[in-house]
Amino acid sequence: MLTSPVIKLQRTGAPMPQVGFGTWKHTGDKATEAVEAALKVGYRLLDCAADYGNEKECGLGLKHAIDEGIVKRHDVWVVSKLWNTFHRKEHVRAAVKKSLADWGVDYFDIYYMHFPISLEFVPFETRYPPGWFFDGKSQVKHDNVPIQETWEALEELVDEGLIRHLGVSNTNSALLMDLLKYARVKPSVLQIEIHPYNVQTRAVAYAQSQGVAVTAYSSFGPLGWLVFGTSKSAHTQPLFTHPVITAIAAKHPGSTPPQVVLRWATQRGLAIIPKSDTVEQMEQNMKSSGIKLSEEEMAAIGMLDMGLRFNDPADGFEGCHIFS
Amino acid sequence: MLTSPVIKLQRTGAPMPQVGFGTWKHTGDKATEAVEAALKVGYRLLDCAADYGNEKECGLGLKHAIDEGIVKRHDVWVVSKLWNTFHRKEHVRAAVKKSLADWGVDYFDIYYMHFPISLEFVPFETRYPPGWFFDGKSQVKHDNVPIQETWEALEELVDEGLIRHLGVSNTNSALLMDLLKYARVKPSVLQIEIHPYNVQTRAVAYAQSQGVAVTAYSSFGPLGWLVFGTSKSAHTQPLFTHPVITAIAAKHPGSTPPQVVLRWATQRGLAIIPKSDTVEQMEQNMKSSGIKLSEEEMAAIGMLDMGLRFNDPADGFEGCHIFS
Repeated sequence: MLTSPVIKLQRTGAPMPQVGFGTWKHTGDKATEAVEAALKVGYRLLDCAADYGNEKECGLGLKHAIDEGIVKRHDVWVVSKLWNTFHRKEHVRAAVKKSLADWGVDYFDIYYMHFPISLEFVPFETRYPPGWFFDGKSQVKHDNVPIQETWEALEELVDEGLIRHLGVSNTNSALLMDLLKYARVKPSVLQIEIHPYNVQTRAVAYAQSQGVAVTAYSSFGPLGWLVFGTSKSAHTQPLFTHPVITAIAAKHPGSTPPQVVLRWATQRGLAIIPKSDTVEQMEQNMKSSGIKLSEEEMAAIGMLDMGLRFNDPADGFEGCHIFS
Repeated sequence: MLTSPVIKLQRTGAPMPQVGFGTWKHTGDKATEAVEAALKVGYRLLDCAADYGNEKECGLGLKHAIDEGIVKRHDVWVVSKLWNTFHRKEHVRAAVKKSLADWGVDYFDIYYMHFPISLEFVPFETRYPPGWFFDGKSQVKHDNVPIQETWEALEELVDEGLIRHLGVSNTNSALLMDLLKYARVKPSVLQIEIHPYNVQTRAVAYAQSQGVAVTAYSSFGPLGWLVFGTSKSAHTQPLFTHPVITAIAAKHPGSTPPQVVLRWATQRGLAIIPKSDTVEQMEQNMKSSGIKLSEEEMAAIGMLDMGLRFNDPADGFEGCHIFS
């Protein structure tokens, strides 16, 4: 069985798997099967979110693996994220409890604030997960909740043992700096979009300098966004056929371009959570940590940076300007 | 006498001059003379800051102009900014009172938080203005003050009439969004670095959509930074000789490249605060508002954007990551 290197989180000293399993866009029975398969391969961190709409299915995959004796609950990092519509103090607790119930677990190892954006509450009964649009179609309705209110509600759930570590996602350094000043329970992890087209040197340096571990999402750049037909992803050179990446892969016998892209991230000290559709991909991604890129190779990949974000809510949602 | 167009501020409806006079880097007697000259030319907004180290000198220029009957106090917008070392509640009031005393006025028309960064307090007696370094040389010492604490202290001074409008400077949209959610007195103005190499389309759109007026600083791009010998400014094509700018100036008889650069900003609805060293420049800058650029010309200038900031504290000051 494969195992991932770990990153010790400052708050507890607990070893977070550096290579986790991303569950975004896994749906239905396939989500259940993928989670079970990932645990069999050796993954010990499952990155999920209320917004992915698959927490029950992922939880079932975890249950299967536990029932089969592959893992115990405490071997696995179960990760979820607070959706934007649940930022009010009174909704945070309900949202966490709902996600815990869907997963069938009684605590989260990491729980993130998914975006630093508060949107009007949508009751679970109306639509779940509610997504960006208040009416489910096109209307974005902002709510008026300061981040500190949300954070204090999350801290209470840490006190109560429902959450082991807090995280922030899609949060820039200036916001993180402010949060670090009032947080009683500091964020342990920052999860942001990082790939060779969006290197984020400074955001990574700042977070790491503050003892906040960094998890990269969308490690494969445009690839994960092609299914949405976004112009940015359609018009960007895919990383797996990029000459810089393929040349480096060719120099490391047995390695593949996806592995090079992932290793570039983990060699920077970042955690990663790639999605895989097959056991072979799951294994390949996990094995990427065995590659050793030279300083020149790391630099050559970093030079592909163009500050390009595939996940910028301001592209599609009114008033959601968090990266400008 | 020349007059500037105005921008009505949402909070009070007061008309802020769109073309103000920038006092940064004016020092000693020359600062006094420049302010007096600017008021004679017709400037009615004086943009200053504790950090500029010239508030007494600028205040003297204002006093001369008042004594000579050129302006009354209430004709002029006097603008200052809170330095990073004074973010604690108990220091905000003292800092504002010190700046008011230095200026010789009893209220500010706009008072900005200069940066969303809190640094360790340095007493007035130790060094004033204290600058970025705790020891005056190279050591940056961060303090632990959330922005909300600073903001609430500023709001009290608005209640007491010492400040008419609050502003934020060097603040990105995500921070502004959060501030707007807890602010009892909303910021009336956002002052950020904007020029053809740093167009800031989204930050401007977001602020304006929230009823926050935007003031552009460093309108001339690299020019204002050359004296510091920074690599970025030294290696950037000066705007006044940029072929896109000179070609547009040539199409508007009697206009100059600096005027084209300024007009590009004001035609976007931005306020500007250019520095001028001579009466001729002061007049030219003020007259830029008379030019009418075509949509194509506006777009051509906007195309020069490369997201290049000449004023990024992370370039020189440890842990001061506010734009990543």
